[in-house]
Amino acid sequence: MSKAPRIAYLGPAGTFTEMAARQIPNAASAEFLPTASVTEALDMVLNKLADRAVVPIENSIEGGVSATSDALAQMPGVQIYGEYLVPVRFDLMAKPGTSLSDVSQVLTHPVAYAQCRSWLIQNVPSHAHIPASSTASAAKSLASGFQADAVIAAEAAAKLYGLEVLASDIGENKQAQTRFVELGLRGKPAPKTGADKTSVIVELPDDRPGGLLEMLEQFAARGVNLSRIESRPVGDRFGRYRFNIDAQGHIEDEAIAEALMGLHRFSPNVIFLGSYQRADKSESKHQGNNANAAYEKAKNWLSSLREF
Amino acid sequence: MSKAPRIAYLGPAGTFTEMAARQIPNAASAEFLPTASVTEALDMVLNKLADRAVVPIENSIEGGVSATSDALAQMPGVQIYGEYLVPVRFDLMAKPGTSLSDVSQVLTHPVAYAQCRSWLIQNVPSHAHIPASSTASAAKSLASGFQADAVIAAEAAAKLYGLEVLASDIGENKQAQTRFVELGLRGKPAPKTGADKTSVIVELPDDRPGGLLEMLEQFAARGVNLSRIESRPVGDRFGRYRFNIDAQGHIEDEAIAEALMGLHRFSPNVIFLGSYQRADKSESKHQGNNANAAYEKAKNWLSSLREF
Amino acid sequence: MSKAPRIAYLGPAGTFTEMAARQIPNAASAEFLPTASVTEALDMVLNKLADRAVVPIENSIEGGVSATSDALAQMPGVQIYGEYLVPVRFDLMAKPGTSLSDVSQVLTHPVAYAQCRSWLIQNVPSHAHIPASSTASAAKSLASGFQADAVIAAEAAAKLYGLEVLASDIGENKQAQTRFVELGLRGKPAPKTGADKTSVIVELPDDRPGGLLEMLEQFAARGVNLSRIESRPVGDRFGRYRFNIDAQGHIEDEAIAEALMGLHRFSPNVIFLGSYQRADKSESKHQGNNANAAYEKAKNWLSSLREF
Amino acid sequence: MSKAPRIAYLGPAGTFTEMAARQIPNAASAEFLPTASVTEALDMVLNKLADRAVVPIENSIEGGVSATSDALAQMPGVQIYGEYLVPVRFDLMAKPGTSLSDVSQVLTHPVAYAQCRSWLIQNVPSHAHIPASSTASAAKSLASGFQADAVIAAEAAAKLYGLEVLASDIGENKQAQTRFVELGLRGKPAPKTGADKTSVIVELPDDRPGGLLEMLEQFAARGVNLSRIESRPVGDRFGRYRFNIDAQGHIEDEAIAEALMGLHRFSPNVIFLGSYQRADKSESKHQGNNANAAYEKAKNWLSSLREF
Repeated sequence: MSKAPRIAYLGPAGTFTEMAARQIPNAASAEFLPTASVTEALDMVLNKLADRAVVPIENSIEGGVSATSDALAQMPGVQIYGEYLVPVRFDLMAKPGTSLSDVSQVLTHPVAYAQCRSWLIQNVPSHAHIPASSTASAAKSLASGFQADAVIAAEAAAKLYGLEVLASDIGENKQAQTRFVELGLRGKPAPKTGADKTSVIVELPDDRPGGLLEMLEQFAARGVNLSRIESRPVGDRFGRYRFNIDAQGHIEDEAIAEALMGLHRFSPNVIFLGSYQRADKSESKHQGNNANAAYEKAKNWLSSLREF
Repeated sequence: MSKAPRIAYLGPAGTFTEMAARQIPNAASAEFLPTASVTEALDMVLNKLADRAVVPIENSIEGGVSATSDALAQMPGVQIYGEYLVPVRFDLMAKPGTSLSDVSQVLTHPVAYAQCRSWLIQNVPSHAHIPASSTASAAKSLASGFQADAVIAAEAAAKLYGLEVLASDIGENKQAQTRFVELGLRGKPAPKTGADKTSVIVELPDDRPGGLLEMLEQFAARGVNLSRIESRPVGDRFGRYRFNIDAQGHIEDEAIAEALMGLHRFSPNVIFLGSYQRADKSESKHQGNNANAAYEKAKNWLSSLREF
Repeated sequence: MSKAPRIAYLGPAGTFTEMAARQIPNAASAEFLPTASVTEALDMVLNKLADRAVVPIENSIEGGVSATSDALAQMPGVQIYGEYLVPVRFDLMAKPGTSLSDVSQVLTHPVAYAQCRSWLIQNVPSHAHIPASSTASAAKSLASGFQADAVIAAEAAAKLYGLEVLASDIGENKQAQTRFVELGLRGKPAPKTGADKTSVIVELPDDRPGGLLEMLEQFAARGVNLSRIESRPVGDRFGRYRFNIDAQGHIEDEAIAEALMGLHRFSPNVIFLGSYQRADKSESKHQGNNANAAYEKAKNWLSSLREF
Repeated sequence: MSKAPRIAYLGPAGTFTEMAARQIPNAASAEFLPTASVTEALDMVLNKLADRAVVPIENSIEGGVSATSDALAQMPGVQIYGEYLVPVRFDLMAKPGTSLSDVSQVLTHPVAYAQCRSWLIQNVPSHAHIPASSTASAAKSLASGFQADAVIAAEAAAKLYGLEVLASDIGENKQAQTRFVELGLRGKPAPKTGADKTSVIVELPDDRPGGLLEMLEQFAARGVNLSRIESRPVGDRFGRYRFNIDAQGHIEDEAIAEALMGLHRFSPNVIFLGSYQRADKSESKHQGNNANAAYEKAKNWLSSLREF
């Protein structure tokens, strides 16, 4: 990346995604470029209008972000270089001068609404929900004159769009987090740190019962644990799936390397999405039989047999 | 169900869901009750305000409908009694008198927008998208005076809300379908037809690598094929999943019955969602070793050993 | 069994098998009937000439006793009711008046010879081995005038046939044991003690690669551990095997019962050989998910779903 | 091998083993060296007193030859270079002048006796069996004056020891075969022919339930079929096994090579016994996903990801 990297992110300003983007190591000097969609953010990287794109990939409550999962499957050429976690905290905010008793129409993203519904039922019993495409766009719309009484958004949005917080942290799950990935053009994977993750998308072979079991055995036979598995439809008809998978370890770990080659043989379509440091920095080394040293010994043994 | 069943469905009128609800066998005499959300539809059944609820569960392009998957996991007491398929056909429609060249602001659900984006880029290059909570609500909003030029919705919505179709079938994937389920209060499963499906939600045991593999082996050991597997976060923290699964066969098939009991032993939480006739009517009988006759023989053999 | 049971055993008198047979609970009052072969011992049970037959099934050094494994597969109608362990201790013995320096021709069973070969090479360097059909028959032959200088046999044989021990415990492996089974006519299995074993013979389905893997999954899916697996040719051509298996638990354990039924469906030919108390009395209860209580709960759950 | 190879074989002359040894490609010019035991034959190779050793490894009726299986596990340094099949045909033979009605004491190896027992019961009802260490040694003993009336052996033995055949082909199973292996010092494996077998001995990890399942998955994950699996006790105590395995393919097949490396990581002790042409010449190429070309593509793909 250049000295002043250009970082595209799912905007508008004030979203949780921007908070994630600002965690990128050299973010201090970066230029931030909000986009209207995940695909637009990826397009900016592919067209070299941005060095990096930051998009949400998974929420601890809502699950995988389909738009991102599918964009990664359908827009080849990008790779994950890092991941970032952002705690999800929702505030109810409105134009200055509004009080809670004035609130009836609440504009926000459906996921945010689902998280805050219990609080609203308790505190604004007769409210109605107007869906928005993101929490920040809701705040921006309200500030721009959209007909609503309040929005639910991240605190950052209040400052950015001149709104006042009526109630803080009104989400149901206080431990909720969203995980974001930092994407760049395909290239050499981020260096191995010993606390790494490898992401792939694997399409199952057609019409083979037990295909998922076979795929999982490609990992199991090499002692590789999975930290995430998300099914997505291939999209041509019901019953065909691809799986977005995060595996523990780095492509420079032989257990991962051999599992990747196994998947490549097994699957009609496997996409390597990158090896990168885990946000939680927890160790990813393969133990015992599946450590690099065990692979090295096995390889030397094989050579000694073949080349005797 | 009573003679004139009350059928709640994810509204408003004119959605694809209504088209599914009208496929229910005794729909002709039914009273149709649109709801604002999936959870509201389920609530109506749980509170006996409706006999049945019809909600979308899976789209061949967009995948599982998270709101339904999660509601089924979190709102115990309902059961699936049938499934229905509706082809997804999107039309661009506007108030009478509008021509295609007038269109700039397009109001619709994000999924519908994604499906029609290619067509819009080609035919309405400078359009902007305003998200709506459903295609039918978009049509309803436009008819009620919402500031937009056109909506994308099902043809039925045009008639219902007095709009005119500007362009037909503008979606990218002409084979796209949505699958809907018919829910009622928990009860005796629908009778076995020989072309059946059984749905369950299975939570994986905590912190056991290979848990998913073990779960799949509960099906494999009984020769049961899966037609769908969808991962959803349990919601308390990253890395914990439950799986929404459709298996081939009926709870009266011994292969399914034994697999269900295996899951019950294996999983900290397994929810039976019902056995019901497949919409595509394709055969679900277990062959050879896993047919009911083979189970019967094995059971008799065991008894002969134990009771000698 | 009658008050004074008739116990057939692989003779002649003085074999390790007799030592095992004398461990049977009511052996004190029994009539002991030596036989010339394993099949003869089984025949006596099948023809009601004996109440029980005791035959060796496995040696900790030499492995499975093929004659017994195959007789159990080919002579249906018998069942295992108990198992007994006998430490294998070999003595070199000869007619009274013989000294070690006189020994050149050593008569014994090949397995006994293999075990004592190191000692003989050290102490009787120029010896030759004459094979006998059992250690006791070697002692009997020597006593009856067979041309040899010494025999290797169990201590009991020396007393029985009037021989003198020249050297004691000359076997290589001091922990060697032989396991014997007590057979009777097919009938109600021995009662469950909580420290049980279940034995079966399972033929693999024809020409299905991965058949052995599938068979093992029938046990694994029910959490059943195996303490022994012995492959034997089916005998019609190369590459077809049946497996003699000892599994941990009793047919009254639901995990075992369901695994047995799974094998019955899977295999073209499965023979139940009995459930009986382990000789080592170590616990065989299935834990957690696979305990009888878990099966009971799963069964009740299934009923509640079906019969709602 | 030298021009006039020295071939040790399990003797004496006239055994089925000699018939196998004479099938070795350059046997015409060879010097044949009978040995008294399998271990002696291997010792001759290890001590360079013979270039090759030929020993029986499996019989289609009696199963694995334990002496060979165990010698291969315990005497490192030898390797299999070929395999040969010999049909097993048993004849009853005696000294010239003997007629069938004179026969009472029948000397032969127990396995041969078991095969011919039905015929003897029919034709020599009152016979007795005297066990010998091999069929050929029985013939040799009878010719040398041993007290018996007849022997059961291969036809070749009659000629060799001057006996007369009283009855031909009296074994029960007319398709019975014995498989023999040609052993030499460890070295470069026999060249790949496309109809190959790879033999290994694999010890299971200690005290891990499901160890056998894990081992089989090392083969399954690479699509490798097994043509033989024989369990043998490790010998220190009950319940510990090693497995003698024949897998389809050659060490130059990547599927085999990777499976071997997987076994090396998994097992505390794995012995490579060689890759060599199958006696039946049936094809051993791995198809589709597991062909060398698929491995090559996967390897190149991995390199392209790592080295981008």
